[in-house]
Amino acid sequence: MSGTAEKALAALRAGLPEPVLLTDPDSVARFAHDDAEWAPYGKPLAVARTTSTDDVVAVVRICAELGIPVVPRGAGTGLSGGANAIDGCVLISLQGMDEILEVNPREQLAVVQPGVVNDDLRAACREHGAWYPPDPASSPWSTIGGNVATNAGGVCCVKYGVTRDYVLGLEAVVGNGDVVRLGRRTAKGVAGYDLCGLFVGSEGTLGVITEITVKLLPGLRAPERTVVGYFDSLVEAGEAVAAVAAAGVVPSALELLDRHCLKAVDEWKNMGLSAEANVLLLGRSDAPGAAGEQEVDALLRCFDAAGATWSARSTDEHEADALFAARRLAYPALERLGPVLTEDVCVPRAKVPEMLGRIEAAARRHDTRIANIAHAGDGNLHPLIITPPGDEEARLRAQRAFDDIVADAISLGGTVTGEHGVGLLKRKGLHAELSPAVIGMHQAVKSAVDPAGIFNPGKVFGDPDR
Amino acid sequence: MSGTAEKALAALRAGLPEPVLLTDPDSVARFAHDDAEWAPYGKPLAVARTTSTDDVVAVVRICAELGIPVVPRGAGTGLSGGANAIDGCVLISLQGMDEILEVNPREQLAVVQPGVVNDDLRAACREHGAWYPPDPASSPWSTIGGNVATNAGGVCCVKYGVTRDYVLGLEAVVGNGDVVRLGRRTAKGVAGYDLCGLFVGSEGTLGVITEITVKLLPGLRAPERTVVGYFDSLVEAGEAVAAVAAAGVVPSALELLDRHCLKAVDEWKNMGLSAEANVLLLGRSDAPGAAGEQEVDALLRCFDAAGATWSARSTDEHEADALFAARRLAYPALERLGPVLTEDVCVPRAKVPEMLGRIEAAARRHDTRIANIAHAGDGNLHPLIITPPGDEEARLRAQRAFDDIVADAISLGGTVTGEHGVGLLKRKGLHAELSPAVIGMHQAVKSAVDPAGIFNPGKVFGDPDR
Repeated sequence: MSGTAEKALAALRAGLPEPVLLTDPDSVARFAHDDAEWAPYGKPLAVARTTSTDDVVAVVRICAELGIPVVPRGAGTGLSGGANAIDGCVLISLQGMDEILEVNPREQLAVVQPGVVNDDLRAACREHGAWYPPDPASSPWSTIGGNVATNAGGVCCVKYGVTRDYVLGLEAVVGNGDVVRLGRRTAKGVAGYDLCGLFVGSEGTLGVITEITVKLLPGLRAPERTVVGYFDSLVEAGEAVAAVAAAGVVPSALELLDRHCLKAVDEWKNMGLSAEANVLLLGRSDAPGAAGEQEVDALLRCFDAAGATWSARSTDEHEADALFAARRLAYPALERLGPVLTEDVCVPRAKVPEMLGRIEAAARRHDTRIANIAHAGDGNLHPLIITPPGDEEARLRAQRAFDDIVADAISLGGTVTGEHGVGLLKRKGLHAELSPAVIGMHQAVKSAVDPAGIFNPGKVFGDPDR
Repeated sequence: MSGTAEKALAALRAGLPEPVLLTDPDSVARFAHDDAEWAPYGKPLAVARTTSTDDVVAVVRICAELGIPVVPRGAGTGLSGGANAIDGCVLISLQGMDEILEVNPREQLAVVQPGVVNDDLRAACREHGAWYPPDPASSPWSTIGGNVATNAGGVCCVKYGVTRDYVLGLEAVVGNGDVVRLGRRTAKGVAGYDLCGLFVGSEGTLGVITEITVKLLPGLRAPERTVVGYFDSLVEAGEAVAAVAAAGVVPSALELLDRHCLKAVDEWKNMGLSAEANVLLLGRSDAPGAAGEQEVDALLRCFDAAGATWSARSTDEHEADALFAARRLAYPALERLGPVLTEDVCVPRAKVPEMLGRIEAAARRHDTRIANIAHAGDGNLHPLIITPPGDEEARLRAQRAFDDIVADAISLGGTVTGEHGVGLLKRKGLHAELSPAVIGMHQAVKSAVDPAGIFNPGKVFGDPDR
């Protein structure tokens, strides 16, 4: 261990209360990576399970002085390696800071610590007659802090927007150990730069978020009507998605699952889905009354016109919920089959059919299995590349398919990441998507907020070849 | 004229096509300030009426090399002095860059040059069956570029959000003359920092915005139902506003006008409003069918419970539109009475009655006339302080009332500016609202994007005493 590392450990031991700091290798290793199975990770020096903003300040001050990298993490459900350990870093686990400090339906806001689990916040809001919409598939496990750091999306985002749209303010510890309050508690506010928004989606590279004020919608969520469409091909399902956008319909969900996902869920949970359809589209409308009926009709018309082999509105609420549960289970079901390399491209809605066709072509070209889940209504596709465990050749082919899909998305006017973040896996794609001048702006802004360069160095816009 | 100024003029003459550059003092003076009658302004060296991004690049390169301040401006309808000339600056007028480049209802976006007038974009979108919601009172004159630079609000923001919520991407010329494209065209995207969002509301301090991609909502705007409430006092009207928030109703408009505004409009347009009410609340609902009826009922219940002397749903669409037209005319009507010092505080919704009471107290305490218009449903209040032309004593009293109102808003958990921006008028308030650490972050971010410090120096977070 280097002298600097020893100095850091001594200072951390002196500066933090007893149970906060973990240094034995086995305990530390449990925090070393997120859920991106393909992303590399290093060996942390220590893990600080902070219990307060003061703890975070203590860690940041010590690390800034000694030039030790700091990697903040929530529940570790990320899918891009953004929270993966860097060799010799201090990981700050914010999971223990999990208090809901305020739910205020009158002002339509809630204040939480970063470790609050998404579903827990949503349940607390429900009790107060309010709704926090962002609903990533990881909502039973992922934390609001992690959601904010990655600007997480979800199923209802197609109508209600992403995490960014619900972050009013936050408290963060920045590079010199200062605690700053950014944003506001009022409905509107333009006092200075949107530094709060700058932190949303910054993937731990600008500081450690220690408190979050989120916007709520008043009232409970309206009940939803569900429609189901079966399709023979991905491209036909994609045509249905493009038709929905062209018709000007904004569903409250429009999700796609292909036969690989349906089969994996069947094999695990025996739901009998894959016998029925090659590709499943699930649409929902939460518009009230006649407007909702009209939206459902419009969705079904779009499904049928694109060549659905079967389509219907679901009259059984339990059946509808089961289908969405299957959607949520698709990712863990596929993980059972081997390491999953997750993509997260987002393309213009009209390009969804073409992009789905290109994904299939990449699978064929590189002889690799690609399953597809998609927040299709957003154009946000999740091709999931699955390789047999231990097959190095298959891994190389998978990586080539990944790169082709990224290039295809960019060439169709899309982005390499719709909601998961860049982390480690999409740095090459980011450099392909953004101009050198824009990368330069990122570096300059990063240095402005984190002059010592301690926060998650090398992630997001770091050199992808290092 | 200094040697640097002469060099700059020579370079501008050489670098720009003939009719772009204005240097004769009379022509230049027309561009020297925005609509904030109380804000100081300097004498520009020249005005560049740019017609292309290339023109903007030419100006920025020359000014960066010579250290000449650059002040971008749209239509000059700002209310904080953000676009006011700095002595020796080059003003870039973007009004001539007024092309609507694309309206794409399928992808729910439009691409415009910065000089496009807000109402013109809205009309173009309507023709394509789509809706661009942000509707500042200045919409017949103000430009999208100016709206983006100030993150403008408006009447329907209480339900549909502000300009920021509709900016997907932009092109800008930054401090070294680089042209950067920030943001995206897709529904979602998290590739790197939200630098696009950082520019929204940056009031010309980070660069010159040369193209904007905005998000549209599909379909035409739904028809609205209007309710009207008369109140004896500002505080009672404020109670009604707080009650609407507490009831969890989200109207599509909730506007307040007090007797000073009603009288000024009457004196100008003879609408007979001030005979009826001391304070007028205008609410709207655009929810469809029965949901809309329920919202209207709820608004009326809130009005009545707070002590409305009269309340009713408007059954006459023309009458309803006339009332909102009066709301839009209130500001110019008051301007006819003398120089208006405009405030733009925003407080938590539950604090609206108390804040309105404090505004009245400030008026009494400082023996000054304060009219009130408000986007009341957002807690965004516009106390308008009016002084008799040429009365220097009254100006001093007005300034003291302004300062007290800013302090009151901050002490109630509010912000000094909800939608107009800081500009020159609210710099002292900004320094009271934000901590020195946050001001330091602003300065660092500004230097990162504008290393030569040429863009609108001294505005927003500049030293208010200089």
